[in-house]
Amino acid sequence: MPDEEGLRRVGRRPGQSEARAEILRAARMLFAERGFVGASIRSVAAEARVDPALVHHYFGTKEGLFRAALEMPIQPEELVEEIFAAGVERAPERLVRTFLRVWDGPETGPAMVSFLRTVLARQESSDLMREFLGATVVRIAASKLLGGVDPAEAEVRIGLVASQMLGLVVARRVLAVEPLASLPAEVLVATITPTITRYLLGELPGAHAVAENDPST
Amino acid sequence: MPDEEGLRRVGRRPGQSEARAEILRAARMLFAERGFVGASIRSVAAEARVDPALVHHYFGTKEGLFRAALEMPIQPEELVEEIFAAGVERAPERLVRTFLRVWDGPETGPAMVSFLRTVLARQESSDLMREFLGATVVRIAASKLLGGVDPAEAEVRIGLVASQMLGLVVARRVLAVEPLASLPAEVLVATITPTITRYLLGELPGAHAVAENDPST
Repeated sequence: MPDEEGLRRVGRRPGQSEARAEILRAARMLFAERGFVGASIRSVAAEARVDPALVHHYFGTKEGLFRAALEMPIQPEELVEEIFAAGVERAPERLVRTFLRVWDGPETGPAMVSFLRTVLARQESSDLMREFLGATVVRIAASKLLGGVDPAEAEVRIGLVASQMLGLVVARRVLAVEPLASLPAEVLVATITPTITRYLLGELPGAHAVAENDPST
Repeated sequence: MPDEEGLRRVGRRPGQSEARAEILRAARMLFAERGFVGASIRSVAAEARVDPALVHHYFGTKEGLFRAALEMPIQPEELVEEIFAAGVERAPERLVRTFLRVWDGPETGPAMVSFLRTVLARQESSDLMREFLGATVVRIAASKLLGGVDPAEAEVRIGLVASQMLGLVVARRVLAVEPLASLPAEVLVATITPTITRYLLGELPGAHAVAENDPST
């Protein structure tokens, strides 16, 4: 995988790391201008004056390029796959555990706090992140829920899950509200999982109402 | 109440608004240096070279001074009182409604988004806000829950409530995640209230475990 920068950089000729830096500069500019969906690997390559194959070589997918450009410390698409890997029924508990592992981790935790502060600080970065998450995380998670519920309802459910998990990490790690900040992960798994189970799989009058009002269903 | 700035400012002599500005400058400095609890009205008055009575005249309580110094667009202590005014049993639904009213309000909403962005952006402002909320909102809310649960458990419950409500407003108003951002408030009240009811009043194995491990109980 082209992600292990630290290893890959060893022995790289100066021209290569310059090309890589130039691609990242171009990516930051184009993602900011056109959004995640609007900016293509091809347009980034053209802006950086390199071959598109070189962008793929360094960053793999457009998601990988986006994460590198924004110094995003995790791979949310892979985490969503991991959360649903044991089936939809086990997803709520795995979701809470995965969130806590990433946000409590000695390396990922501080990087995520710093990343989230940056994302929340300005409207433009909030907009960009929302679009990225919609095109990756929400799309993947909604597809896992399908069969069970209609698309409009799936998105309401995912939004509610996001609201609880985002709030948990903001309260626990960004604001560091006690005793939440010091509670053992296991206590939070026991306490939060029922909420996520209900939002994702349970009876939800609100979500039904939205789905029933949705003209596409 | 000395809070209606717009009205009060009319007819005020220049010397008065200068004293007011000087008090706010001193308050911002001392709250940042000593925290909400550590900075006193007396110390702010001394720093601003005015009589402490003038600080009370302009800002009422220390909470009022804090809100004015940080341009906080709401009075959280009053909102908590309002939420619990009809009793603990009705507090969960009133809490969700009050949050949505404040964050969806055409005037309070944008001001709250901007305020929250500022608070979350830097560690120092996060620390200060956490301390202020602990000394005001959490203290008041915990006292409303008492009789029912022990103090350690009450604080876990309030932390969990904070995590859901904070996440809801961050997802809905700061990141503006759809369809959450456009859902009618009534749908969210129906969907989120059961979560808040459980966190505040329901069976919570996690909270019990914490209370049982707490040496003060």
